[in-house]
Amino acid sequence: METSLQLRSLVKSSGELELSLAKVPLPEPAADEVLVEIQAAPINPSDLGLLLGPADVSQVKVAGAGADMVVTAPVPQQFMRALTARLDESMPVGNEGAGKVVAAGSSPEAQALLGKLVALIGGATYAQHRIAKAADVVPLPEGATAADGASCFVNPLTALGMTETMRREGHTALVHTAAASNLGQMLNKICIADGIGLVNIVRSAEQAKILKDIGAKHIVDSTSPTFMDELTDAIAETGATIAFDAIGGGKLASQILSAMEVAINRNAAVYSRYGSSVHKQVYIYGGLDLRPTELARSYGLAWGVCGWLLTPFLMKIGPDAAKLRARVSAELKTTFASHYTAEISLAEVLKPEVIAAYTRKATGEKYLIVPTKDA
Amino acid sequence: METSLQLRSLVKSSGELELSLAKVPLPEPAADEVLVEIQAAPINPSDLGLLLGPADVSQVKVAGAGADMVVTAPVPQQFMRALTARLDESMPVGNEGAGKVVAAGSSPEAQALLGKLVALIGGATYAQHRIAKAADVVPLPEGATAADGASCFVNPLTALGMTETMRREGHTALVHTAAASNLGQMLNKICIADGIGLVNIVRSAEQAKILKDIGAKHIVDSTSPTFMDELTDAIAETGATIAFDAIGGGKLASQILSAMEVAINRNAAVYSRYGSSVHKQVYIYGGLDLRPTELARSYGLAWGVCGWLLTPFLMKIGPDAAKLRARVSAELKTTFASHYTAEISLAEVLKPEVIAAYTRKATGEKYLIVPTKDA
Repeated sequence: METSLQLRSLVKSSGELELSLAKVPLPEPAADEVLVEIQAAPINPSDLGLLLGPADVSQVKVAGAGADMVVTAPVPQQFMRALTARLDESMPVGNEGAGKVVAAGSSPEAQALLGKLVALIGGATYAQHRIAKAADVVPLPEGATAADGASCFVNPLTALGMTETMRREGHTALVHTAAASNLGQMLNKICIADGIGLVNIVRSAEQAKILKDIGAKHIVDSTSPTFMDELTDAIAETGATIAFDAIGGGKLASQILSAMEVAINRNAAVYSRYGSSVHKQVYIYGGLDLRPTELARSYGLAWGVCGWLLTPFLMKIGPDAAKLRARVSAELKTTFASHYTAEISLAEVLKPEVIAAYTRKATGEKYLIVPTKDA
Repeated sequence: METSLQLRSLVKSSGELELSLAKVPLPEPAADEVLVEIQAAPINPSDLGLLLGPADVSQVKVAGAGADMVVTAPVPQQFMRALTARLDESMPVGNEGAGKVVAAGSSPEAQALLGKLVALIGGATYAQHRIAKAADVVPLPEGATAADGASCFVNPLTALGMTETMRREGHTALVHTAAASNLGQMLNKICIADGIGLVNIVRSAEQAKILKDIGAKHIVDSTSPTFMDELTDAIAETGATIAFDAIGGGKLASQILSAMEVAINRNAAVYSRYGSSVHKQVYIYGGLDLRPTELARSYGLAWGVCGWLLTPFLMKIGPDAAKLRARVSAELKTTFASHYTAEISLAEVLKPEVIAAYTRKATGEKYLIVPTKDA
């Protein structure tokens, strides 16, 4: 039987993470399924949780080579409880990707996709092949390569999900942190096109420049000594009352709420003992800073800090999700273009020096796995 | 012109809080208004913010005596910015109260209230008299005294607001902190009557006993060395996925979310890399602990921590608020009975030893201002 390589992540109850390439049987598609040869799959920040978990990657050990390489790293004891549900289960990895349909089931829908380039989401994309329902893959538009389409779900739909959430919850402008990321750049393009006020919070002059160069209007640097004043001014100017925060830990979410409250109260006619009645919202969608979130609660009681995740959001908006997907497809090579630092093979994902590179989460750096590439 | 005493709180830009009894002209009610002689007004925790703000009450200074007494206390510099909107403005205090209608405007609605005992909410109840719209006061049921009706808004409607919020947001059981408070006792009575699972978090054996004596089923003590296990068990047993937290500061809100997540995952069939998809919610409605709220975010992304305030909630539910009010009226001397530690005069509110008593916020202690009482 023919086999195919699939990247696996395993956390053992002994306290060790193990990455390996499993040889899995190449499956036959059922009537309504297609078999996709994956040609490109991005390493998004949201993939790292399942791929590496809280393992200490500074202590990786390597055994074997090429497709037989096995990499291990210790998982600090305090994180083991949170991993109970995945212990000793070898898990495929990779949220999204794109590739060519090389086999198709008997249904007309599946047959119509044979030979086409498609994008897909839903896990197990760090592999040479993946089975998918014909209805779940998205044919790429004319002229788009697998690399163009590999990242067409997570970042584009998250960026559109932010402006869509903003509108649905009655806000008119927004704040974004770690704003020079690939995602943040897309968000700027969307907000410029749609005329939405966007306050970009960055952590360095280099990041500020990236955004300035693509036309961002409000950029504040959290390392500036006058950060809070600048943030408050930008929020007052845009009227932003909702923020999306990729940082998570520390005081930033709380600082954003404080700045919103001060901006709102600048024009308040009367004192309200419970703070302004305008609802101020921060959605935490990432965890670049793993420390606890610290909320000073110095902004009355009309505020919320909540987790935000793409899939439940798309389920909640139901049929409207199709509109967001159509926009991504139409603007795949413009608004939603991704840029990759390097293309790596499946085996390279396991190499210690490559692990060090893609876990650095440097701004603007993004790695693309090309499973068709030799190790 | 006749005058009436009204308690005032003033924060001066010099950094000093001043409490005094102002002599204000006794107003004539307009056609649709009534003049209420306030006979009872409670000091709720939610009144202390406007009354004393962040002033250091261990350093109060007294000048004068009786109705001419003026009390001052320093406001630490770091809190002054948050008080900008109320600086140098003498503010009346007191959220709710009850008393007798001693004058009424010409409208039939106002005239019908003349001589009746009524309850009212909306500020300035720490006073001998208060003008109110006839439509805004609630006649007390037969046999109820002003003391019975003085606290019929804030605590009863907050407790009912909690179970109402629970139902509206799709939860079936709840967690409450500082659970042996007057409010917490009401909440237990409501939940027992309505068959709602309630996890009570207390901070001492004495508090646990108060709740046990009124029939509470799930009581966990946060000072217990096995607190997290007990909390998780109680949450698993009740299925609680929403909490109302009066503490605010520290790790408690985060611990509740953690316990909910562990309880939900006990029966989870598959590992979800982003945590359970069940939304876990904590509403912070008080600030007994003024330190920052620390969120560990070890419970996936389906969670929210938000401020909760009664008035906007009542506005949101619109006409349904009348149903809650009707229940309070019907159960005023049972479910919603308040017990007071002491009755104090308006002048006594300003006495240093009395300030020390009502700012202690000891469990079960509650003070009732009786403006008709002599100093």
